Amino acid sequence: MSILEKFLAGDRLALAKIISHIEDRGPELPHLLPRLYEKAGQAYRVGLTGPPGAGKSTLVDKLAEKYAAESKSIGIIAVDPSSPFTGGALLGDRIRMQNLTRFKQIFIRSMATRGSAGGLAASSGDVAMAMDAFGMSMILIETVGVGQVELDIVDSCDTTVVILVPESGDSIQALKAGLMEIADIFVINKADRPGAEYIASEISMILDAKRKRTDWLYPIVTTQAVNDIGVDILKEKIALHRQYLTAGPNASDNRRRRVEKELMRVFNLELKDYIEKQILTDKTLNYYIDEILSGASNPYEISEAILNSLDRNKR
Amino acid sequence: MSILEKFLAGDRLALAKIISHIEDRGPELPHLLPRLYEKAGQAYRVGLTGPPGAGKSTLVDKLAEKYAAESKSIGIIAVDPSSPFTGGALLGDRIRMQNLTRFKQIFIRSMATRGSAGGLAASSGDVAMAMDAFGMSMILIETVGVGQVELDIVDSCDTTVVILVPESGDSIQALKAGLMEIADIFVINKADRPGAEYIASEISMILDAKRKRTDWLYPIVTTQAVNDIGVDILKEKIALHRQYLTAGPNASDNRRRRVEKELMRVFNLELKDYIEKQILTDKTLNYYIDEILSGASNPYEISEAILNSLDRNKR
Repeated sequence: MSILEKFLAGDRLALAKIISHIEDRGPELPHLLPRLYEKAGQAYRVGLTGPPGAGKSTLVDKLAEKYAAESKSIGIIAVDPSSPFTGGALLGDRIRMQNLTRFKQIFIRSMATRGSAGGLAASSGDVAMAMDAFGMSMILIETVGVGQVELDIVDSCDTTVVILVPESGDSIQALKAGLMEIADIFVINKADRPGAEYIASEISMILDAKRKRTDWLYPIVTTQAVNDIGVDILKEKIALHRQYLTAGPNASDNRRRRVEKELMRVFNLELKDYIEKQILTDKTLNYYIDEILSGASNPYEISEAILNSLDRNKR
Repeated sequence: MSILEKFLAGDRLALAKIISHIEDRGPELPHLLPRLYEKAGQAYRVGLTGPPGAGKSTLVDKLAEKYAAESKSIGIIAVDPSSPFTGGALLGDRIRMQNLTRFKQIFIRSMATRGSAGGLAASSGDVAMAMDAFGMSMILIETVGVGQVELDIVDSCDTTVVILVPESGDSIQALKAGLMEIADIFVINKADRPGAEYIASEISMILDAKRKRTDWLYPIVTTQAVNDIGVDILKEKIALHRQYLTAGPNASDNRRRRVEKELMRVFNLELKDYIEKQILTDKTLNYYIDEILSGASNPYEISEAILNSLDRNKR
């Protein structure tokens, strides 16, 4: 049996192997991915992000348990773009996996940057697609940190949840602008701590302008994930947002936008491979560097010459 | 007088305008940038990053004042990738600019993401190049936040300074891996707070492995930027690292690596423009989305077809 046949027969080891191929950008991908894509399209993707220490993992685990209790099969992707050099699974993930193993329907995978961050955002999308094709009905994508790559990752999901904590204080100030724009649902976690109501009302005020422009009300949910308080409400809000997206007045636009994002993601990932293997190989790169160092050319002229050659030939 | 002539004559307004062109990716860039590049190459670039609240801006300002007191002309670029929607200058920057206006040699510019984060990392490089061409001898690039884009931005500098604070605690744990790899110099700022020695010794322990592999000792400097304590030592360490890079045994490799990074940065930025204007225009994109929605094709086949057409024509 090929790995694809095993995958299609529901073998979780085959899923894990295919995810490793996706991470390594192996040569079998151009054959595998379109086959997986045919099977995908059923899963709902929820992206969750927020500053370090907001309790994202605990909240994601509680959510996953609740979906699992409804016999849904769940994929969790934990992405850590700020640690390009840690590689495989981290200690925290191993502890999480032990906690979640009593739910057979939960499949958890952690990803760290290997190489560039853009590649990570793109390949986490392929991992989600593979989980989708495998039959996961719900995929939770969680990112550590709050940079642009994290925003890109969760923004590519159907529903985006931003998790804050009362004491975030000045760091929230700094991050608010980006986070406010991408969030469909806000969570104030650790809501037993002082300041929870203050931050909720502060966010609510900023959201009022957005709320006027759409039919979606951008709910703010207060939770204490560790005590399982408020997580059911978050789950309800996610279901409501799903209904809004798929049955609301903009359902058709939403579907097109989702396909566009998917196409751009795949294209940019394959383009990157193409450039590295066909255009700027080690050999040509060294030649260009010599040209620049000798003063015979400069990065701008070289880039333009390469792009012109592509352009001219295309006509 | 053209804007380029004014720029070359030392007009700071012309510099500001050219930076705006760079941010907007205006049509005059292909003509402007190679001209600027001819004049550039003298400035030294220092990248500074660290978690929110580490006191980066204060430290950068103190450093800049010290360079300015030596009659050096200084450029400061403050990049905020986590706020894609704030646009122009932030309140904090305006206050900073007022504080620094007594130094005529300091030119400060803030950049926030417009569109994708990759573009920000790339165009902040062009802004640095423009400041270099203008005659700034030292350019300080400061990023807010600690995601991959921030790492990319400061990593493209000659010397990378990572700024931490004693109380960063668990967030440091989470971020350490990426930051440890890119830093040439560590700063423990707000060193009067409890835990400063502990974090310094913790970092020192992790660095020991790296120290064995090179001649560079990865210094750790404790500072209280707000009281001007330790900033002179940081300045010395930056000078030492510059000497190590340019006069050390790997000086030639370092120069090649710098040119390679510059070429890749410029190429990727121009490639992105080319794709948007020539390959995936609104019209073709809509056609492809229809193909995918109707089931006639999928993102993988479409991406491969586009790249194959480029590839075949190139031969």
